Amino acid sequence: MRGSFFVFKRRMVQRLRQLAIFVIGSAKVKLLLCCCFAFTLLVLASRAPAFMGWEHQTVPPDRSSVHRKGYTILMNTWKRNDLLKKSISHYTKCAGLDSIHIVWSEPDPPSDSLTNFLNHVIKSNSRGGRQIELKYDINKEDSLNNRFKEIKGLKTDAVFSIDDDVIFPCSSVEFAFNVWRSAPDTMVGYVPRVHWLDQSKGNMDHYIYGGWWSVWWMGTYSMVLSKAAFFHKKYLSLYTNEMPASIRDYVTKNRNCEDIAMSFLVANATGASPIWVKGDINEIGSTGISSLGGHSEKRSECVNRFVAEYGRMPLVSTSVKAVDSRGVWFW
Amino acid sequence: MRGSFFVFKRRMVQRLRQLAIFVIGSAKVKLLLCCCFAFTLLVLASRAPAFMGWEHQTVPPDRSSVHRKGYTILMNTWKRNDLLKKSISHYTKCAGLDSIHIVWSEPDPPSDSLTNFLNHVIKSNSRGGRQIELKYDINKEDSLNNRFKEIKGLKTDAVFSIDDDVIFPCSSVEFAFNVWRSAPDTMVGYVPRVHWLDQSKGNMDHYIYGGWWSVWWMGTYSMVLSKAAFFHKKYLSLYTNEMPASIRDYVTKNRNCEDIAMSFLVANATGASPIWVKGDINEIGSTGISSLGGHSEKRSECVNRFVAEYGRMPLVSTSVKAVDSRGVWFW
Repeated sequence: MRGSFFVFKRRMVQRLRQLAIFVIGSAKVKLLLCCCFAFTLLVLASRAPAFMGWEHQTVPPDRSSVHRKGYTILMNTWKRNDLLKKSISHYTKCAGLDSIHIVWSEPDPPSDSLTNFLNHVIKSNSRGGRQIELKYDINKEDSLNNRFKEIKGLKTDAVFSIDDDVIFPCSSVEFAFNVWRSAPDTMVGYVPRVHWLDQSKGNMDHYIYGGWWSVWWMGTYSMVLSKAAFFHKKYLSLYTNEMPASIRDYVTKNRNCEDIAMSFLVANATGASPIWVKGDINEIGSTGISSLGGHSEKRSECVNRFVAEYGRMPLVSTSVKAVDSRGVWFW
Repeated sequence: MRGSFFVFKRRMVQRLRQLAIFVIGSAKVKLLLCCCFAFTLLVLASRAPAFMGWEHQTVPPDRSSVHRKGYTILMNTWKRNDLLKKSISHYTKCAGLDSIHIVWSEPDPPSDSLTNFLNHVIKSNSRGGRQIELKYDINKEDSLNNRFKEIKGLKTDAVFSIDDDVIFPCSSVEFAFNVWRSAPDTMVGYVPRVHWLDQSKGNMDHYIYGGWWSVWWMGTYSMVLSKAAFFHKKYLSLYTNEMPASIRDYVTKNRNCEDIAMSFLVANATGASPIWVKGDINEIGSTGISSLGGHSEKRSECVNRFVAEYGRMPLVSTSVKAVDSRGVWFW
């Protein structure tokens, strides 16, 4: 117990030291700021016309993106038409969106009024010859595995898997899509989660699943949740056809952890970590299962169950965060 | 001219507004800091034993990395044995290093004293059963293309291309290697460069190459220099065997731009941007060609020449920066 306390104290001292460095750093930042300002004035005075010429330097449009495909939104929804309408209305405004697949597992098919509304929204946001496609993936069985069913004839390699109650600005979506294009084999998402070995259980390999605060405290993560992530369409086929059926059964039975299963699947295929991108999340609903009691324990159970299925822990921890350098002034 | 001035003024106002947001933000940060501190004390007082249990939560070792290969250092050197010794002495201390290939294009072969020194350094840093391999790639012709000659029998997929006068801490190297493992098809490096369309030339597609300050000003980049970058070994073969010979000839003749040629090659293959990672660079030499006069014009010439060879501009601009989230407190 005393040992634990001292280790904790050491961690606190370490964190406080980091804080001190941050505060001293900010003094340096102010100095740097003054220098930059003085430098700017100097340059401006001495060679104003040449300096103004900077404005000519526009980054050229990315030509290959014209020929490159965009992404497909894969949206899971469940009896929340108002949220679905809000989400689709938002995302159809984003450039790069090619088509929308709504995973529909309700007993009743989508109503005509919903379909009419969505078609109207899509039409009004389809500018410049862009034609966004809308499809429902209607499922008879209500299983969380429906979310990752293989979609035949998908036109884009990139799938943007998103819950119906999560809204990101289009700029954030474009940013994550950019990261994914450079790393198309891994998952690229906004919501990081972590696992760690529970040493209190002695030699037994028992893992614990950690949420947002654990990631914040440790600065590392090993999963990004499929509630808001890009991944390659090939993983839909792998999830449905190649992943052990026992994992899919577990997900159906427990109504949980399809996102952890997908993280395991991708990490097992790549041997690498996912990439967490910074984005402004706006959660418009609040009835997700993560807000229910005992959530963390159930998630830990999933992790340990999947480790047993794979015979090893495929997840790879990392501390990489992709940020937009246009928002960073001090490098 | 007046138009240019107003555009410039608008950009300044925009930047000052960002600055204001930053300053106001820092007040928020202080408030957040106080809240966090109070929260920590509260939690500590109410459930100290449970909280201390956090220390049990060590991130498990990445098991797959045991089976995964490390990286090969590909180091270009030219009559600077002192720098070469310093660099190799440093990098052999880094975990993950599998082998070192020194690209040797001097008329005389490496001296015995140099080889003895390097072998000694490697031996003394090869701990825990790790055996780092050292090889010279001896070239008769002195060409910058030697740097990217195909290496038969390379054991690792990852190549860490690095100049002999650039030192990064091992932690930075490991970090970039981690990013590369998640994005093995693209270039992952520390030194970003940018290109843009020169609109002053009217309709002609004339590009300008921009250095560090251009990247800082615009926040975007489209290349990472091979003086410090990870890439897949397949690109060595592509550079030597598949890339138009006219580009290699241009590089040899002008003694410049092999790094831009590699950036074009990779972007053309992936259709995506490279990834810039944050790292603490320490340049131990200062006689590189980038410090010579007319450097920027020559680099712009290269860009335009290569665009003509490819028949299009393959480079893709981005603003993604990979940072270590352990160093970021305020998300």
